Amino acid sequence: MPREQGDDDADTFRILLATDIHIGYGEKDSVRGNDSLVSFEEILEQAQKHNVDLVLLGGDLFHENKPSRRMMHGCLSLLRKYCMGDRPVQFEFLSDESVNFEHCQFPTLNYEDQNFNISIPVFSIHGNHDDPTGVGNLCSLDLIHSAGLINYFGKTTSLEKIRVSPLLMQKGTTKLALYGLGSLKDERLHRLFLKKNVSMLRPRENQDDWFNLLTLHQNRAKHSDTNFIPEQFLDDFLDLIFWGHEHECRIVPEWNGMQNFYITQPGSSIATSLNEGETKQKHIGLLQIKGKDFKVTPIPLTTVRQFYLEDVVLADTTLNPNDPNVGRKIEAFCREKVEALLEKAESEHSGSRKQPKEPLIRLRVDYTGFDTFSINRFGRQFMNRVANPDQMILFNQRRKLGTKNKQDTDE
Amino acid sequence: MPREQGDDDADTFRILLATDIHIGYGEKDSVRGNDSLVSFEEILEQAQKHNVDLVLLGGDLFHENKPSRRMMHGCLSLLRKYCMGDRPVQFEFLSDESVNFEHCQFPTLNYEDQNFNISIPVFSIHGNHDDPTGVGNLCSLDLIHSAGLINYFGKTTSLEKIRVSPLLMQKGTTKLALYGLGSLKDERLHRLFLKKNVSMLRPRENQDDWFNLLTLHQNRAKHSDTNFIPEQFLDDFLDLIFWGHEHECRIVPEWNGMQNFYITQPGSSIATSLNEGETKQKHIGLLQIKGKDFKVTPIPLTTVRQFYLEDVVLADTTLNPNDPNVGRKIEAFCREKVEALLEKAESEHSGSRKQPKEPLIRLRVDYTGFDTFSINRFGRQFMNRVANPDQMILFNQRRKLGTKNKQDTDE
Ligand SMILES: [Mn+2]
Ligand SMILES: [Mn+2]
Ligand SMILES: [Mn+2]
Ligand SMILES: [Mn+2]
Repeated sequence: MPREQGDDDADTFRILLATDIHIGYGEKDSVRGNDSLVSFEEILEQAQKHNVDLVLLGGDLFHENKPSRRMMHGCLSLLRKYCMGDRPVQFEFLSDESVNFEHCQFPTLNYEDQNFNISIPVFSIHGNHDDPTGVGNLCSLDLIHSAGLINYFGKTTSLEKIRVSPLLMQKGTTKLALYGLGSLKDERLHRLFLKKNVSMLRPRENQDDWFNLLTLHQNRAKHSDTNFIPEQFLDDFLDLIFWGHEHECRIVPEWNGMQNFYITQPGSSIATSLNEGETKQKHIGLLQIKGKDFKVTPIPLTTVRQFYLEDVVLADTTLNPNDPNVGRKIEAFCREKVEALLEKAESEHSGSRKQPKEPLIRLRVDYTGFDTFSINRFGRQFMNRVANPDQMILFNQRRKLGTKNKQDTDE
Repeated sequence: MPREQGDDDADTFRILLATDIHIGYGEKDSVRGNDSLVSFEEILEQAQKHNVDLVLLGGDLFHENKPSRRMMHGCLSLLRKYCMGDRPVQFEFLSDESVNFEHCQFPTLNYEDQNFNISIPVFSIHGNHDDPTGVGNLCSLDLIHSAGLINYFGKTTSLEKIRVSPLLMQKGTTKLALYGLGSLKDERLHRLFLKKNVSMLRPRENQDDWFNLLTLHQNRAKHSDTNFIPEQFLDDFLDLIFWGHEHECRIVPEWNGMQNFYITQPGSSIATSLNEGETKQKHIGLLQIKGKDFKVTPIPLTTVRQFYLEDVVLADTTLNPNDPNVGRKIEAFCREKVEALLEKAESEHSGSRKQPKEPLIRLRVDYTGFDTFSINRFGRQFMNRVANPDQMILFNQRRKLGTKNKQDTDE
């Protein structure tokens, strides 16, 4: 059960949970081009501020499989700025680095390498956006790992049999077994689970003393029969699942009574699709573990660009399709909606100097029985006030409210 | 004048000179794909072996402006492997890092940053192949500099006026002023020199005590009136010019009596064009500086793939164009030439396990008065014995021997 009090003592692991940072998303957009780096910087600032033992990332650190030079440079620079320094690392590593990091050119922990002075070790699995490809089967995290700025774990080399060796860490009396499984095609992993070809190795002795944390990056929502990982596939000896890939913030741990574990899903730190899941306040989490107890404290991100979504059904309004001026009136109606959302954005602004003033706005307009209007012309009047003037309006017909269209996302 | 004895004393700077390593050249070739990394590794091994104070690179570390992930990873890994460690750096840095590296995200020397444990500092300017481009005007060296594995200098920010601030270093009684000028379009730099808009700043005091070394990466050979940098454009207070970009090895310092300086041109460590300049044995140099004296000791590279070029004029042979079997005879003639070159390659092999067995072979065939034959068919018989079976034969007509065709190179 989540524990109630937040300890900062010598037996408590303090772990910053963040995922789906998508560095590079929208980088060519003149307004939004730096959003992802701004969020990543806030995340690392919070790691310092909360004096964490380590940062744990759940995949999709990069949006592009081959990040641009500017984005790779930005990422390396932020890691160097925030994660190096004299602060000593407070926990012990008990497992064999050369096994945990056997897939890496340097099968070592960065903070145990005398050539790097690491203050906050960052551990990361890869996501589907930044997975290994090409000659050498490398991904962006390999590059950052070899540069000594991250600890890349959870890469599987076999496509037939997956054995996950946990990273074993101890802080005071608390023992943490950290399992990582980098992103795989859901159908393939689903099949491997069904065939019992995925095994989570466990420490030989005192198995019950360990807190077992699994990080993975897969579909949690059911897209089709096999295109997701059912929670019940995961071993019930696990205590907590840190679920990446799903961009909706569901960071407050949810209990799975069948499996007897909790799931925390922090969600992305940037909206990469303009749908409901991304409208929720973005969070990272402070995970504290003491013995077999844990607690996740959600930390709202204050620099993320605001995003407001509203559904409008023209047939449910007083607008009359036979009114000769109906076109003008529809536009006026939508304009008022946007103005209201802009007002809301202003009142809900975090106050952070780094949170942009121009929010993302999406109006989904069911125009059944009416005509559409020019999205671009409409957008132009909100230039410099809205971050996405050209994509504010989405027309659709006879929308079944409540059905989430998962197909159009790419998390 | 170059000094005669090689000192390893406390007053002698020991600098490894290497240039035009072109990491990534031919990386997609199944035979030659790793050649550039193999050479870079040998260069760094030599730096360790010769106990140098620093490595100085003359540009074109990368062949592609946007190196592939595999090549960037290979480069970072080699730098981490060979240039980090406990060996103390033996010279002092006297100038202001924040001025010398003002163009960098981290305007500092890597070995003076307490967060990195650097044993051999590497200094590099950029070449025309890896020059800064795009948003943020970044290049690959910026990335490696920010990762703490290189010291990137010689980046100019103004296009109108260039002022080169030297890196001032002292070892014992020897004072070194290291000037760097990263690659610029030759025509532009030529014009800036003519307009007197290029200035090399000098230390205020005791100007005559400094050994002045300039690293640049430009055309040295005259391609057209303005498409090169005449040696006499360079200040005559300079003692030694380290000339990058030209791939031909002319590492033994050449005296320019008009300017009163020496020029050393180590040449590339990989053949990127199959022309005369690239046939010479590839070298790097050990530069030793004591007071105002210096010496360059050429170090032959033993892992570089061998390259043999021969010119053949069919009209000068006993082959008879009217012979009904002349086609077969020409091929037999060329085959013998190749066999002879292969024998030569075998006898001249360095003996290094890492030097490939399959050399590059180029036969330039002046076929005036004769017919050509199928280059591909000819090449197939040398598969697995020659590194470039498909590109061995180059047909031409009435070739004026001795005129170097500079246009077809891309150094
Ligand atoms: Mn994902
Ligand atoms: Mn994602
Ligand atoms: Mn060049
Ligand atoms: Mn070159």
